[in-house]
Amino acid sequence: MKVLILGAAGMVGRKLLESMSRDGKLGGKPVSEALLSDVVLPQVPDGLPFACSASQDDLPVPGTVERLIGARPDVIVHLAAIVSGEAEADFDKGYRINLEGTQRLFEAIRQAHGDARPGEGYYPRVIFSSSIAVFGAPFPERIGDEFFNTPLTSYGTQKAIGELLLADYSRRGFFDGIGIRLPTIAVRPGKPNKAASGFFSGILREPLNGQEAILPVSDDVRHWFASPRSAVGFLHHSAAIDTARLGARRNLSMPGLSATVAEEIEALRRAAGDKAVALIKHQPDPVIEKIVAGWPRDFDTARALELGFVADRDMDAIVQAHIEDELGGKLPAL
Amino acid sequence: MKVLILGAAGMVGRKLLESMSRDGKLGGKPVSEALLSDVVLPQVPDGLPFACSASQDDLPVPGTVERLIGARPDVIVHLAAIVSGEAEADFDKGYRINLEGTQRLFEAIRQAHGDARPGEGYYPRVIFSSSIAVFGAPFPERIGDEFFNTPLTSYGTQKAIGELLLADYSRRGFFDGIGIRLPTIAVRPGKPNKAASGFFSGILREPLNGQEAILPVSDDVRHWFASPRSAVGFLHHSAAIDTARLGARRNLSMPGLSATVAEEIEALRRAAGDKAVALIKHQPDPVIEKIVAGWPRDFDTARALELGFVADRDMDAIVQAHIEDELGGKLPAL
Repeated sequence: MKVLILGAAGMVGRKLLESMSRDGKLGGKPVSEALLSDVVLPQVPDGLPFACSASQDDLPVPGTVERLIGARPDVIVHLAAIVSGEAEADFDKGYRINLEGTQRLFEAIRQAHGDARPGEGYYPRVIFSSSIAVFGAPFPERIGDEFFNTPLTSYGTQKAIGELLLADYSRRGFFDGIGIRLPTIAVRPGKPNKAASGFFSGILREPLNGQEAILPVSDDVRHWFASPRSAVGFLHHSAAIDTARLGARRNLSMPGLSATVAEEIEALRRAAGDKAVALIKHQPDPVIEKIVAGWPRDFDTARALELGFVADRDMDAIVQAHIEDELGGKLPAL
Repeated sequence: MKVLILGAAGMVGRKLLESMSRDGKLGGKPVSEALLSDVVLPQVPDGLPFACSASQDDLPVPGTVERLIGARPDVIVHLAAIVSGEAEADFDKGYRINLEGTQRLFEAIRQAHGDARPGEGYYPRVIFSSSIAVFGAPFPERIGDEFFNTPLTSYGTQKAIGELLLADYSRRGFFDGIGIRLPTIAVRPGKPNKAASGFFSGILREPLNGQEAILPVSDDVRHWFASPRSAVGFLHHSAAIDTARLGARRNLSMPGLSATVAEEIEALRRAAGDKAVALIKHQPDPVIEKIVAGWPRDFDTARALELGFVADRDMDAIVQAHIEDELGGKLPAL
């Protein structure tokens, strides 16, 4: 099975490749080749149990997606995106990558499918990473599976449009799509990116590394989380799932953990003590406060749970996974 | 006030212009000029109480929407669309007009808005005619204002995407948009078009004209209706409304009348007798049956009603409006 990962240089893309490299499989099926694509050249790790190549691509440039699809990948994992904060700051860039890039990708697959009957010929599985940013306040206490999409960011708008296109192209039988709305990933390893949600990870990651972190919102802010491990698990399950079970509704909210910033802080305290917590500095940022106020806090993801997607148990498990996967199980001396 | 009507040669466009010509107003505000655009050259009626010009345009052709927006219309009524049946039959054509045409229009307005602050500079009211086709079965008994969009046609997908773009461009302050999901218009005057919903009008219009009509579905099919009078009323109200009352949720389902085909037939019987009803021939069409089965049947449009949009009273009123407006109050001798 040939797997194309778009956005392969990003955190989730790298974690996915790492997980595939362990047993050479995606969703339980053997991988023969991985094609990595990103706007920066993805690194090809040594010793992979399958063939692997990488290319540096700007998706909306004519010919780019056609070349990538020319390799006829069986599974396409579409993680490439301009993140929320940047898509809000740069209207053109966000629409160009998140909307036009996705449109061109789907269209290239349709062209490769050609005149084949629906569901036949070239008919890859397409896994589209969507986001809870497709929802916009005001919300019910828990957002159910039939709640409407009223994004309050351009990023959320672009993801919601990607979902609609994915569903229509799948309904037409051009490809076999599934769109998964990822919770906010925490603890996101590495350096902060431009996502407005970055602090949710930062207030755990930085102190666990012995460094200060900025908290730009109040600690009673509630949000919806998944660990990188869970996110990678969602992608494997999306590759394996029988999409007939989805019917025409190809997009769904992934299960997650609803927790407040205060609960994050208490999990940090249990794992690393008061000195770690003392590294969090509260510096209110009205721009981030406003964006975050438009975001969901809790979900009822009955559909995804019934379809076998699995969430994190609690915030302690999320912190523990980070310590194991990123810090070699060690905490800093504070 | 300058008004641009896109899709002005269509039924709703012509009815809107006719209603504007009566007192020279749109939504209670005096019209100085009307600009008519359509893929076929719209007719400019004689004796209008305002200036009027027409152009034949293919919206996605580069430069087209820029030229139309160059006139700086204060209100833009966007009715142009490939109808559901045709957008389903011709994938490329539907996406080209319904999605790309709308994208280009919104983008041209944004460019004309330029560097002005949000809500300032060139900042027209944009009225987007959306459709109940943004919803897809299975439904609750009545579709509420927060039910999600899972269209089962490409047309519905394109309309749902137009709604998302309208909301985002409005949120950004590039224009002042409102998207209204029109119920199925009945009785649609004139000749049948390629809409899969055409028979809902045909089974009233043709018999009221002394002609046979084909009913391609069972008479227990329930659907959601508005008369042309109501549709035009929605547009006037959309031009007049204080959009601050919409908040970020710029798209809403219009109020309508939920009725079965059998109820249509009984209203026809009350208006025109058994001989008119006998002109309806039941010829099941599996393609139309399948499309219609994915369409909504009833709505709870609390939001639109609270915002002052007004629906038809009953099916008798809808039939009567057609007899008055289209048949000069006369019935055929049967």
